[in-house]
Amino acid sequence: MKPVRVGICGLGTVGGGTVNVLRRNLAAITARAGCPIEIVQVASRSQPETLDITGIEFTTDVFAVANNPNVDVVVELMGGYDVARDLVLKAVNNGKHVVTANKALIAVYGNEIFEAAASNKVIVAYEAAVAGGIPIIKSLREGLAANKILGVAGIINGTGNFILTEMRDKGRDFADVLAEAQALGYAEADPTFDVEGIDAAHKLTILASAAFGVPLQFDAAFTEGISKLSTVDVSHAQELGYRIKHLGIARAQSDGIELRVHPTLVPQSQMLAKVDGVMNAVLVEGDAVGTTLYYGRGAGAEATASAVIADVVDIARAIHSDAEVPVPYLGFKAESMADLKVLPIEEVVSGYYLRIQAKDHPGVLAKVASILSDNHINIESVMQKESEEQNGLIPMIMLTHTVKEKQINEAIAQIEALDDVVGEVVRIRVECFKG
Amino acid sequence: MKPVRVGICGLGTVGGGTVNVLRRNLAAITARAGCPIEIVQVASRSQPETLDITGIEFTTDVFAVANNPNVDVVVELMGGYDVARDLVLKAVNNGKHVVTANKALIAVYGNEIFEAAASNKVIVAYEAAVAGGIPIIKSLREGLAANKILGVAGIINGTGNFILTEMRDKGRDFADVLAEAQALGYAEADPTFDVEGIDAAHKLTILASAAFGVPLQFDAAFTEGISKLSTVDVSHAQELGYRIKHLGIARAQSDGIELRVHPTLVPQSQMLAKVDGVMNAVLVEGDAVGTTLYYGRGAGAEATASAVIADVVDIARAIHSDAEVPVPYLGFKAESMADLKVLPIEEVVSGYYLRIQAKDHPGVLAKVASILSDNHINIESVMQKESEEQNGLIPMIMLTHTVKEKQINEAIAQIEALDDVVGEVVRIRVECFKG
Repeated sequence: MKPVRVGICGLGTVGGGTVNVLRRNLAAITARAGCPIEIVQVASRSQPETLDITGIEFTTDVFAVANNPNVDVVVELMGGYDVARDLVLKAVNNGKHVVTANKALIAVYGNEIFEAAASNKVIVAYEAAVAGGIPIIKSLREGLAANKILGVAGIINGTGNFILTEMRDKGRDFADVLAEAQALGYAEADPTFDVEGIDAAHKLTILASAAFGVPLQFDAAFTEGISKLSTVDVSHAQELGYRIKHLGIARAQSDGIELRVHPTLVPQSQMLAKVDGVMNAVLVEGDAVGTTLYYGRGAGAEATASAVIADVVDIARAIHSDAEVPVPYLGFKAESMADLKVLPIEEVVSGYYLRIQAKDHPGVLAKVASILSDNHINIESVMQKESEEQNGLIPMIMLTHTVKEKQINEAIAQIEALDDVVGEVVRIRVECFKG
Repeated sequence: MKPVRVGICGLGTVGGGTVNVLRRNLAAITARAGCPIEIVQVASRSQPETLDITGIEFTTDVFAVANNPNVDVVVELMGGYDVARDLVLKAVNNGKHVVTANKALIAVYGNEIFEAAASNKVIVAYEAAVAGGIPIIKSLREGLAANKILGVAGIINGTGNFILTEMRDKGRDFADVLAEAQALGYAEADPTFDVEGIDAAHKLTILASAAFGVPLQFDAAFTEGISKLSTVDVSHAQELGYRIKHLGIARAQSDGIELRVHPTLVPQSQMLAKVDGVMNAVLVEGDAVGTTLYYGRGAGAEATASAVIADVVDIARAIHSDAEVPVPYLGFKAESMADLKVLPIEEVVSGYYLRIQAKDHPGVLAKVASILSDNHINIESVMQKESEEQNGLIPMIMLTHTVKEKQINEAIAQIEALDDVVGEVVRIRVECFKG
């Protein structure tokens, strides 16, 4: 199958991440796309210092990429409005598909760009423009296509959510946390776009259009930032059972749509209230599906690259869709399926919760602990529930660090063989996931 | 544009939901798909009593649908293995695309079905087979296509999660909650598939194949149910800072994949631990995107119909993909965009948190309350923080019920004009979302 040839404009954080992820996962990406995806040209103000671009043509002129007859897809990762707009329109008018991570560009010039793209019959994809690696645009445009969307509400600016989380958890002031966020690189030197809600309003504008099928209307969005938020209000909200989140909300009313970004009290039992730190989440309410929520990292080199490359894969699948099956059944082409065996449960690695019914004799804990130690199993915590003594038996509860199932099986057999232990040991697996 | 003609086999809960949602949202679905989607035939053991199928051909023979030359897409919503397998293979061999919600069928016979589909160059789509309306298959096959998937962990059986949530919240026994779940219709008369993890293992098998690109291997899944789980362990877990969830876990190891369903302790700070009641969620860890999570209703007539219809829309877009833009830019065809204006913020409806700095005089609360009442604003709660008195001022915190922004603006102006109120009233919006 002919490769899809990509030209990347902009080699900053996201551009570098895109080059790295495409190269690292090329085999898996090819198995999914059905054809190789080849970076033929990259453009940046200056030759990158740390990024390896061996074998890729380099130029300082982004328009050279848009005019390159060997490029099928132009990936715009420069940011900003003006040059990016000219570049994308040039690429589209040259009949090239475009992938962009540029929320400002789509929110402000999207109507014009989509019109030009439609008349040139090319794809313009922008998954990476909203909520980084979370496939929320795909979910709205495709996964929830059966629904009348009633509303969308999102934590779509990681910097703002980090600041609010710190204000709540540590009672710190806005200005104090902002300074830390800037030092950590979560916030820009000029934080206006993030903390005043402009960045969130760009993303919300795009979400609303994909949700309700209305043209992009960034100018009509209402925007209120978090810079004036007091720590006392954050803590009063908590006492009332709420958390303050900087939400973008778009909601369908009978006579129009709401489009607004502002600090918002959310009941703390709700999923959106539980999204902390730099994480993003978008809640979508559909008339058929009910409430769904999409959670993940909203920024960062590789999370954003994940969305950029997914868009390129979609384009590759569309270009080769004469096969009538644009997406392989399991996502990978049949001839590229992996030959990985399923591991027997004895080979699986997990932590374990153990509940042992032990006679109230001295030394039982020591015996159990030494069995675990002999089997190279580390104990994370122990709880002896003297208060739950029944018939001279005391429950002993242990959490272990991760071990292979066969090790815990062996240890449990030895524990059950102890004179002071009665009945079977209760064993439940413990898992800790990232995020 | 020529309509896509659908035949539906099975008119139970999901079949009925699919007919209803397709008819109710036909205009929006057509705007997204780019062509009308027409139900031309339905098959069921007997004529439905409550469902309106006026204008749709009815048959008791599902194979008549698979053989109907006027049907482009066969939607299999009967469940079970045997007849469903014959039906799907017949449809595929007749060159028809297939959409199914049948997890058992795909987990057990998926390899055979996909092979037949590939040689007939037809699509077989199964979004509804896993986690109801949550677009998790689409996210794995498309949205995360750039990633090496490291692991998947899901709460993918609503019945089991409902039972565990009740056991934890109310200290009730498994058997007791199961009986209630059966009475509520969440659990079948024979609950084995749900509580012993077979249903979850079917879904996990499908998730693992889409995540890792391996053939479907249901027989290799390890399955442990929740029927033997004690309430004491649920409460010990809580004391240790964990919640017990019935998880399906698939994880890539260097020499194979883990594929297992069992009760699992999850740290209660994690998003998965916060998924309660009948809700489902799937966590996916990718090497580029990091951790993402997808949350929503995992069952029910219309949530499942949402996924079924999304698959039909995908097929419609693929059939008509000669337009080179298989998915419209904003998800809706340009000529079908809605003409909805963005409402000014004054017309938006919200609850409000108000913080008022009031002099420590009797009667201030009464004055504020009467202003709110005069503006038809109901108070949900009031908190006077005497302990936070400063310079003779006491903060008064109020939560209001939902009103239009212009009403609260008017009331705030009147409150600020009171002699006993100092400075500006702090106002933060309150939103409560479903789920």
